[in-house]
Amino acid sequence: MFENQERTHLEELGEFGLIKHLTKNIKLTQKSTIKGVGDDAAVLDHDGKKLLVSTDMLLEGIHFDLAYTPLKHLGYKAIQVNLSDIYAMNGTASQVTVSIGMSSKFPLEAIEELYEGIYLACDNYNVDLIGGDTTASKQGLVISVTVLGYADEKDIVYRNTAEEGDLICVSGDLGGAYTGLQLLEREKLVYIENPNIQPDLEGKDYIVERQLKPEARKDIIDLLKELDVKPTAMIDVSDGLASEILHICKQSNKGCNLYEEKIPIDPMTYETAREFGLDPTVCALSGGEDYELLFTVKQADYDKIKHKMDFSIIGYITESNAGCNLITKSNNVHTLTAQGWNAFKASE
Amino acid sequence: MFENQERTHLEELGEFGLIKHLTKNIKLTQKSTIKGVGDDAAVLDHDGKKLLVSTDMLLEGIHFDLAYTPLKHLGYKAIQVNLSDIYAMNGTASQVTVSIGMSSKFPLEAIEELYEGIYLACDNYNVDLIGGDTTASKQGLVISVTVLGYADEKDIVYRNTAEEGDLICVSGDLGGAYTGLQLLEREKLVYIENPNIQPDLEGKDYIVERQLKPEARKDIIDLLKELDVKPTAMIDVSDGLASEILHICKQSNKGCNLYEEKIPIDPMTYETAREFGLDPTVCALSGGEDYELLFTVKQADYDKIKHKMDFSIIGYITESNAGCNLITKSNNVHTLTAQGWNAFKASE
Repeated sequence: MFENQERTHLEELGEFGLIKHLTKNIKLTQKSTIKGVGDDAAVLDHDGKKLLVSTDMLLEGIHFDLAYTPLKHLGYKAIQVNLSDIYAMNGTASQVTVSIGMSSKFPLEAIEELYEGIYLACDNYNVDLIGGDTTASKQGLVISVTVLGYADEKDIVYRNTAEEGDLICVSGDLGGAYTGLQLLEREKLVYIENPNIQPDLEGKDYIVERQLKPEARKDIIDLLKELDVKPTAMIDVSDGLASEILHICKQSNKGCNLYEEKIPIDPMTYETAREFGLDPTVCALSGGEDYELLFTVKQADYDKIKHKMDFSIIGYITESNAGCNLITKSNNVHTLTAQGWNAFKASE
Repeated sequence: MFENQERTHLEELGEFGLIKHLTKNIKLTQKSTIKGVGDDAAVLDHDGKKLLVSTDMLLEGIHFDLAYTPLKHLGYKAIQVNLSDIYAMNGTASQVTVSIGMSSKFPLEAIEELYEGIYLACDNYNVDLIGGDTTASKQGLVISVTVLGYADEKDIVYRNTAEEGDLICVSGDLGGAYTGLQLLEREKLVYIENPNIQPDLEGKDYIVERQLKPEARKDIIDLLKELDVKPTAMIDVSDGLASEILHICKQSNKGCNLYEEKIPIDPMTYETAREFGLDPTVCALSGGEDYELLFTVKQADYDKIKHKMDFSIIGYITESNAGCNLITKSNNVHTLTAQGWNAFKASE
């Protein structure tokens, strides 16, 4: 990617030089950030609000493939997958720390591209980068992000508080990130067989972007506040709809009925899944990486949320003994199982 | 290490099974921990105190060598190096998140050993493990830790606040972790050449332990409070004394004089350095990984700190133009340079 450009070798900079270089343009915007990069620890102050903390690690070869992942998108995504966890608590994300391990053979320009995506995500979502660690890696690229956020205690939404009769809602549409990944993997194989053939992603922008550059659904949190609806339980869809609703039901000690025909699937996702001989519903249930929000709301809030285009009502919570079921389009009842993404199987 | 034992393969457990298995014995002890592992984010509440956040990543082949690093020690050390950053702010560490990337070929028993060390460190230092991420790694073992702590605003000690005339102090002794590493590396080579020869670390426990199982100096923070001494600036010694004092001086816009004869070096460190043909002072200045605390105090506090065995006074802060100098035992003046550990060079 950088073969025709001048390279700056990381050894010349050293770790402190690199940190200085990468952080020189940081602008802190959060009132709660007292001290950012540059000491042993950042200093934050949250005025007695509840603090939220989450962390996610992305490893080359497991979570991303540099053959088709632009570094700027990767940096952007690394932040989004973390922000998504804070929004899934109904909180406001405010700060991130970013640790990067990379080969010393990476030119500085590559790391800069990665950080461009990181800073863009921080800018777009009004989050401060307050610290981190950079180190050499003998193996692949490693990105570890910790995100901090806050919320009033009364606003926090957990996973274990869904009640019988609650409506199950999901934002956006599902299965796109997974079908986008299938497409990218296919074009990679085509390219390996014949490097003269250009990747054919024509007209598939939407699902490719779902995979490479997801957006955490802060807008849904804002919308729910506007509608004066507090979800009874919430989780983000990182491992697939089935895995996530099972988390909510198991932790709430409840069951659920999901309706296949209600699961939101974009036409491009549907069509591409079919091209690959995949069942679009399975892509939505088990594909993962959509970073949508799955939440439950009281039936009493139905009037407030009906006709909203930003999310779909896809089922309801039942008592525990009724189990977790998918009602298919042909009216069959299937028990839901989490066949979501298993990082350990994926690595074999 | 596990060849004669039954192995539990990580694929059988899956990520959620593994998290559940590894976190089932967590006991939360911090009043500020509202919700730990088990939701999208942990929930903390620090009653309006200032929150401190720091993060450090350890990568196999860069920061540790599994040939001679017991996994339990590695887990312990991964926590210590993070706690050390909070103490270096004069704060109290309260929570950690731990993300682990590892090969799916690792047996569960190995991960358990790693976590045993993590939990032991958390227990010993009264810190809650509140979340994290576990994932497969196609390459080596990856450990990323984020630590949270707190402090009253008036107690926080930064790096950039040293004043001319302040005394420079360092806890414990320096260079031990580095000479311990030399010893371990030598015995590894001996073992590779002839696996029948057992490692000869007889009588070298102290420096081997300095390398493999460092202890963050919470006791020094407690002692300084007891003495009613607030340092004017502080940093932990992770990259070597020279690198750290240069951070303090550069950020405070000051110079310093350090006295070689005052630098605390354990006799075993001294003797082992000599065996390897190394200058013990250089090991202390550039070796790193000692995780001692380097701090400056007002001259007015001298009576409070003199005769304390837990730390040494090794020099004083000067005006910026005087530069950063080492006064040798033979009374020569050398300009201090940071030849500390460079992760990017180390990886070549």
